[in-house]
Amino acid sequence: MKAYLECIPCLTRQALKAVRLATCDDNVHVSVIRRILATVSTMDFEKSPPEMAQVVHRLIRDLSGNTDPYRALKDRYNRLALNLYFGLKQRIESAQRSTETAVRLAIAGNIIDFGAPIDENRLDLNHCVLQALSAPLFGRVDGFIDALSAAESILYLGDNAGEIVFDRLLIERLPREKITYVVKGGPIINDATMSDAVSTGMTDVVRVIDNGSDAPGTLLSDCSERFQSEYARADMIIAKGQANYETLSEADNRIFFLLRAKCPVVAWHMGCDVGSYVIQKPLYNKAALNGPIGAGERSI
Amino acid sequence: MKAYLECIPCLTRQALKAVRLATCDDNVHVSVIRRILATVSTMDFEKSPPEMAQVVHRLIRDLSGNTDPYRALKDRYNRLALNLYFGLKQRIESAQRSTETAVRLAIAGNIIDFGAPIDENRLDLNHCVLQALSAPLFGRVDGFIDALSAAESILYLGDNAGEIVFDRLLIERLPREKITYVVKGGPIINDATMSDAVSTGMTDVVRVIDNGSDAPGTLLSDCSERFQSEYARADMIIAKGQANYETLSEADNRIFFLLRAKCPVVAWHMGCDVGSYVIQKPLYNKAALNGPIGAGERSI
Repeated sequence: MKAYLECIPCLTRQALKAVRLATCDDNVHVSVIRRILATVSTMDFEKSPPEMAQVVHRLIRDLSGNTDPYRALKDRYNRLALNLYFGLKQRIESAQRSTETAVRLAIAGNIIDFGAPIDENRLDLNHCVLQALSAPLFGRVDGFIDALSAAESILYLGDNAGEIVFDRLLIERLPREKITYVVKGGPIINDATMSDAVSTGMTDVVRVIDNGSDAPGTLLSDCSERFQSEYARADMIIAKGQANYETLSEADNRIFFLLRAKCPVVAWHMGCDVGSYVIQKPLYNKAALNGPIGAGERSI
Repeated sequence: MKAYLECIPCLTRQALKAVRLATCDDNVHVSVIRRILATVSTMDFEKSPPEMAQVVHRLIRDLSGNTDPYRALKDRYNRLALNLYFGLKQRIESAQRSTETAVRLAIAGNIIDFGAPIDENRLDLNHCVLQALSAPLFGRVDGFIDALSAAESILYLGDNAGEIVFDRLLIERLPREKITYVVKGGPIINDATMSDAVSTGMTDVVRVIDNGSDAPGTLLSDCSERFQSEYARADMIIAKGQANYETLSEADNRIFFLLRAKCPVVAWHMGCDVGSYVIQKPLYNKAALNGPIGAGERSI
């Protein structure tokens, strides 16, 4: 998905938040914002939003000297999600449709996205969990669960810290030996990296690799050869979050996007409302759109 | 009030909306946004937001060739407000506290502000009117009404098209000979200009002058000598809307700001919540803050 002009104000908002997390120095805030405005003014607007965000967040890290501005927030949300872990696990185990409940919770965890216009001071994870259990889905969970059973090898592209605990709950319902979980190669916004996979116990549950990239989502050309080779081999790809949709929306039919639609541009591009709980195949795959999954339930 | 860094993403959002209203040409949208990002990147961030907006909107008009991008929206909201006029007039006349009701409606009209993050497709004027009649006020209406009686000459700095009809309802409750209503000297966002004063009947009700400026709010140094002289002479100044607050927040004690707080930065600067119905004196006027008006009711 290429960027739309609506992404530009959103990117400057995101940059302001990131530089404020990176340093308390007002002068750095101003100089970074100036530099970002100048940089974005000459960018190729045909790029996807994550490609633009990669450039912007590299600038912020370089100019502020903070290599991981979201580290404290990531730690906080890993802890918050781990505090919910046993309660959620019980909820899944006692549910009538346990795997569906786990899928719903994995989507619920995608609200922990601080690139999106989410105010972390008002984020109520318990409320998100409760809502996710009964919310209409934009997409069909049965087809997704069938595909999970049929696949021999599954590449699970994670998204954010905190959210990774919700992914773990889903992965623990599945044949783990088939699954490889993927984190980012370097800090980018609040996306999970290997240290988050270790601290949340994901590495004890399943094989975890990093993708070698510090872009949001999955910019295949920016990823390591090792990752690209795993990506090429997988039967099924679970791609969590908006940035994975933005970078892979025109990719192949092995992908299932699991996300909470948080931005109007992504929601419009997918054909759903902001707030939707989404299970979708790539948009331009006509076969998928006419198949059991892609038609979707546009009921929110 | 100087700009805050939060104003930068907001200004780019506002610019995108304006250039889309100005032309349907996608190439112009892109080139204008690039030019605005580059221009803002070197701006003096100590300026007030309206000073920055003046530069941005001049660029949009120049580069798009559309001298008044918001003309159709202004006409539409003048018509919508005129359709409500007789009903609102009856409501004021039958109210127990007629002048307070007229003041509340004048504040309600300030929601018609398309510089703020307001979606005009979801704006429900009837709902705004009903809410305004009973909403808590941030500020004391009695002191404002007393000042209206005491003043010999009142300069009423209008804000937006559509809103001007709500101002007319208030002015019709007051001794009109004391009042001069002020519109902008040239098109800027959806601010009212002389043609709006004529088409909404304001010129039949009261003396109307323009301020000679195409900035939002009232940048005194940018206004005509005639306006400056009227401004200097007035006993009381009613300043409608956020941009008047942003440009006059540190000005003298003759001013009463009447506005709906729509942006988090202005609301924070005033000490109220977003959504508040505000009647306030300049913030830094200590005497006013300790007086009967400025202390305010922070009850929303």
